[in-house]
Amino acid sequence: MKKKSIKVGFQGVKGAYSEEASLQFFKNQEIELKPINSFDDVFKSIKNGIIQYGVLPIENSLAGMIHQNYDLLLEYNLWICGEQKIRVSHNLMALKNTKIENIKNVYSHPQALMQCKNYLKKNSKFEEIAYFDTAASARFIAEAQDPTFAAIASKVAAKEYDLKILESAIEDNEKNFTRFIVLQKKVEKLDLELSSKQCKTSILFSLKSIPGALHKALSIFAIRDIDLLKIESRPIPGSPWNYLFYLDFAGKHTDESCGNAIKHLTEIADLVKVLGSYKACGIK
Amino acid sequence: MKKKSIKVGFQGVKGAYSEEASLQFFKNQEIELKPINSFDDVFKSIKNGIIQYGVLPIENSLAGMIHQNYDLLLEYNLWICGEQKIRVSHNLMALKNTKIENIKNVYSHPQALMQCKNYLKKNSKFEEIAYFDTAASARFIAEAQDPTFAAIASKVAAKEYDLKILESAIEDNEKNFTRFIVLQKKVEKLDLELSSKQCKTSILFSLKSIPGALHKALSIFAIRDIDLLKIESRPIPGSPWNYLFYLDFAGKHTDESCGNAIKHLTEIADLVKVLGSYKACGIK
Repeated sequence: MKKKSIKVGFQGVKGAYSEEASLQFFKNQEIELKPINSFDDVFKSIKNGIIQYGVLPIENSLAGMIHQNYDLLLEYNLWICGEQKIRVSHNLMALKNTKIENIKNVYSHPQALMQCKNYLKKNSKFEEIAYFDTAASARFIAEAQDPTFAAIASKVAAKEYDLKILESAIEDNEKNFTRFIVLQKKVEKLDLELSSKQCKTSILFSLKSIPGALHKALSIFAIRDIDLLKIESRPIPGSPWNYLFYLDFAGKHTDESCGNAIKHLTEIADLVKVLGSYKACGIK
Repeated sequence: MKKKSIKVGFQGVKGAYSEEASLQFFKNQEIELKPINSFDDVFKSIKNGIIQYGVLPIENSLAGMIHQNYDLLLEYNLWICGEQKIRVSHNLMALKNTKIENIKNVYSHPQALMQCKNYLKKNSKFEEIAYFDTAASARFIAEAQDPTFAAIASKVAAKEYDLKILESAIEDNEKNFTRFIVLQKKVEKLDLELSSKQCKTSILFSLKSIPGALHKALSIFAIRDIDLLKIESRPIPGSPWNYLFYLDFAGKHTDESCGNAIKHLTEIADLVKVLGSYKACGIK
């Protein structure tokens, strides 16, 4: 009997950077990958048990946070059980018989086009055409069968749609990384073998309207020697100029100090929610 | 001789919400409004002296920060000399002889379409078509002269392009505000009559890699009883997982406590930049 594989969903079409992140995160496991139309539908599919895990981009080292997914973390009660960082490297790809000198139109997501601005400037005869997704632009090139078309997408996309890479690593800034979170339905205790230092916990909170509230909130962690790794703020719909904070800190949610800090935070917060605890990804 | 009017630039076409913000901010002054193609070009035009002031959206109470403008504040050395909040209210508009029952296509910016989701759902025969700008979608309706087309845009846009408002205030959430900043080239001292409580100062900083750095940075303000109003973080290009912080706090940059805090901050920061000091806009 065939071993049942794990169902993992990601937003986009086959060949998306999210697919690459999924493959890296689950590299020693048998998985069945499900491309899903929207971020919201990935969250929904986990909630409804259609997939066991969802892999979603949460921040890019050049563009910043992917705010839709921050907002969806508030909306859905899911659990972050892992993270994966990948290096985003863009490639110019076209049909196998295409020569670079024949390329006229270059399709890709506006952000990818922007990240390859210097390369595209040098090849000023290329006309840049915005497409809704990098991998989908590769699929479009394969379907259109026009030898004057090229796409900018991942290596995985070139392989998926049987395209030839004409130039690789065409991005302006090589320090282009995307961090993905891995979500599941149930709260999970971390592997006992993992030390607190190897782990991260993500929470969200909104503060009561008291003077110095944010400073007090961060003090709760500082006085317990808990290292803050990242803070983001998002507006609270219906409550202009009040913010929801997303905090990542070092440690497991089952650590005593972490539990105490969360309890302490509820004294000055209207809302506190632990979003997950997971092994930190080492990739810089 | 005609009095020379002040040149004020905003991003977008005539009828943009940024135009409305400009008119409100400079309501008692004679201004010459210049629609400018991109955020970057507004910054550039101030730098080059083509306009004296630029009015730029910085955050929306539903969608969050407009990160492009945060990044441009780092890139250009300009001075925030004011802020304006406006209520964003969307209207369905069409040619003067159009009846609502004949409308087939509704054009607007994707964010505006999203903010009118409930209204559009009720009128399910409308086909939503994404356009790059709300005011430009109104201009397109006026030019296309097709009585089955409608746009979602501001009242100012309806007036500008001689369109009829078929339904007003169609947004789902009425607590939809956008905050704009007013930029100029030179650092300016605030009106002496303004108290520190009426003012805001905006700074940006990046922290040295020391434990608890962010908590320490916020403590610098807390121990001086300076109220923090807002914090945002942005990635530092080329330095993955390190962040630049944008902080708004109550007070003038010429206050002694503020000067001391900034000086103190330089002890733990790699970079500190005062972006401006201005009268806080009272609109909630």
